[in-house]
Amino acid sequence: MTVKIFDTPEVQDFLTTVAGFDQDGGNERTKQIMHRLLSDLYRLIDDFDVSEEEYWSAVNLLNALGSQTQFGLLSPGLGFDHYLDMRQDAIDAEAKRSGGTPRTIEGPLYVAGAPQAEGFARMDDGQDTDGETMWLTGQVRDVEGNPVAGAKVEIWHANSKGGYSFFDQTQSEYNLRRTILTDSEGRYTARSIIPSGYGVPVGAPTDVVLKALGRHGERPAHIHYFVSAPGHQHLTTQINLAGDPYTFDDFAFATREELVVPARRSEDAAEIASRQLDGPFAEVVFDVELAKTDAPELQVRHKRPRAMEDEQDQASQLAGTARV
Amino acid sequence: MTVKIFDTPEVQDFLTTVAGFDQDGGNERTKQIMHRLLSDLYRLIDDFDVSEEEYWSAVNLLNALGSQTQFGLLSPGLGFDHYLDMRQDAIDAEAKRSGGTPRTIEGPLYVAGAPQAEGFARMDDGQDTDGETMWLTGQVRDVEGNPVAGAKVEIWHANSKGGYSFFDQTQSEYNLRRTILTDSEGRYTARSIIPSGYGVPVGAPTDVVLKALGRHGERPAHIHYFVSAPGHQHLTTQINLAGDPYTFDDFAFATREELVVPARRSEDAAEIASRQLDGPFAEVVFDVELAKTDAPELQVRHKRPRAMEDEQDQASQLAGTARV
Repeated sequence: MTVKIFDTPEVQDFLTTVAGFDQDGGNERTKQIMHRLLSDLYRLIDDFDVSEEEYWSAVNLLNALGSQTQFGLLSPGLGFDHYLDMRQDAIDAEAKRSGGTPRTIEGPLYVAGAPQAEGFARMDDGQDTDGETMWLTGQVRDVEGNPVAGAKVEIWHANSKGGYSFFDQTQSEYNLRRTILTDSEGRYTARSIIPSGYGVPVGAPTDVVLKALGRHGERPAHIHYFVSAPGHQHLTTQINLAGDPYTFDDFAFATREELVVPARRSEDAAEIASRQLDGPFAEVVFDVELAKTDAPELQVRHKRPRAMEDEQDQASQLAGTARV
Repeated sequence: MTVKIFDTPEVQDFLTTVAGFDQDGGNERTKQIMHRLLSDLYRLIDDFDVSEEEYWSAVNLLNALGSQTQFGLLSPGLGFDHYLDMRQDAIDAEAKRSGGTPRTIEGPLYVAGAPQAEGFARMDDGQDTDGETMWLTGQVRDVEGNPVAGAKVEIWHANSKGGYSFFDQTQSEYNLRRTILTDSEGRYTARSIIPSGYGVPVGAPTDVVLKALGRHGERPAHIHYFVSAPGHQHLTTQINLAGDPYTFDDFAFATREELVVPARRSEDAAEIASRQLDGPFAEVVFDVELAKTDAPELQVRHKRPRAMEDEQDQASQLAGTARV
């Protein structure tokens, strides 16, 4: 097939109509972006001679993805989350905001409102007996090496089956989700269980897309962090546990060399006793370095639809920081 | 913000990884199309400095669209259905398949398996007392003017409230949906009710998109057709009733001059009696001209997920035509 119609005046005029350029109302930026998006997609259809059957199977897939709320899962799989991080890194570099622990993707499984503790928290509810005890600790410092006391360390991770509480309704509320404020030395400590890696649900729309690209949907074992403190840049990051077969083959492209952390196993009775544990454990140490900033908008996480977090929460979060 | 990273080797390499170019499995065409699609989208994000907040609100909108199965509704609103028709028209022209009633978009509301009748069918169940009686008739001919007997005329349309049976569960099964085989003179006749135009649901995700473009989501009153006969090109089309305020301002871009048809009102007792009706009615005449073709694949509608139509139906539909 050699028919190409994209560059005809008829199609170009049609695109300006569809994008609402001849309408007074609406949002000018949305119109500009939509015009560009539609132009790109129309040209793609022309260039690849996309058939009606192919087009409608794509529409069907989009409906399936949305019906299972999987666009936030497919997004990192298609590299968008990492690409946005690459852009933020470049924006920081241009603004001379260097230093600090590297950011990496948030993922779609954060839930706002987890219990908050000072210095130490136990994160697991003790029900997941397959999970090996994890002793997770670290120090939050600024780029000059000074401890940051009272920093807010939000941690969330999967259980031994790869499931997250809230989304996995077999788990108790806020299981494996805690907010810990660092102590006077900037330290935080959590007792939890070693998380398992996991894959996107087999046969789900996200899996269908990845399979069509010859790719898998597996993630290595990892632990999510939000770290924030007044006067410092908000950090969204993750650590990957070393030694997982997918540590450097994460379908979500979240791995960064500096964020791969070993889990050190200990069966030492004295170590066990000093931590008031009841048996062998794996210690994971993750120190965090926060870059400084005076800009209030850089001290909070960007807006995004998140479970249990409404706009009011975000507004008060912003206002709270602005007051500091 | 002036940061642009799209053209860096880092991003370009990343795109080839995301598209699965380094993987043996998967589908080569899907990889190529995905690479192009992602390249277009990544470049758009860079060019428009799309913020994380904007990106995630778009992801949220995609989930909302899919959760309400609205991609098939948004699709014509963004002109894709009409654009595919423009491409098919160009493909037909290049292949010298000229003539015949113009095609226009199918829309997402067809339901397979409607009752079939010969020559005449009553389409409405008599429950919609707000609907004015419609006498819908016409002749199917080939491009040389010869009547086509036994042509399959599938008709579906909305009720007086703009609702379609199956999707509007207050209506009886297959209300306002019939398949009529043309008689020996190629004629079909239906008694039904005049449909109403309608708009996309207010506040629904599709409406949100259209509003942001300064556009409305209204459609004029219209009647859908599939017309097919052995040896002739399958026709997907619609007629718009003349005089509707949206006849030439359809959000779905389905209107074509040749497909605007008047509804002629009659209170003439003799006309009413000859049609065995019980009162005034509106007559709509729509003659159909089918182009000829020997190609079996052009004699059936293209594949697309449709209500009550599974792949087996489509396969048998294809096989049935191929045997003729």
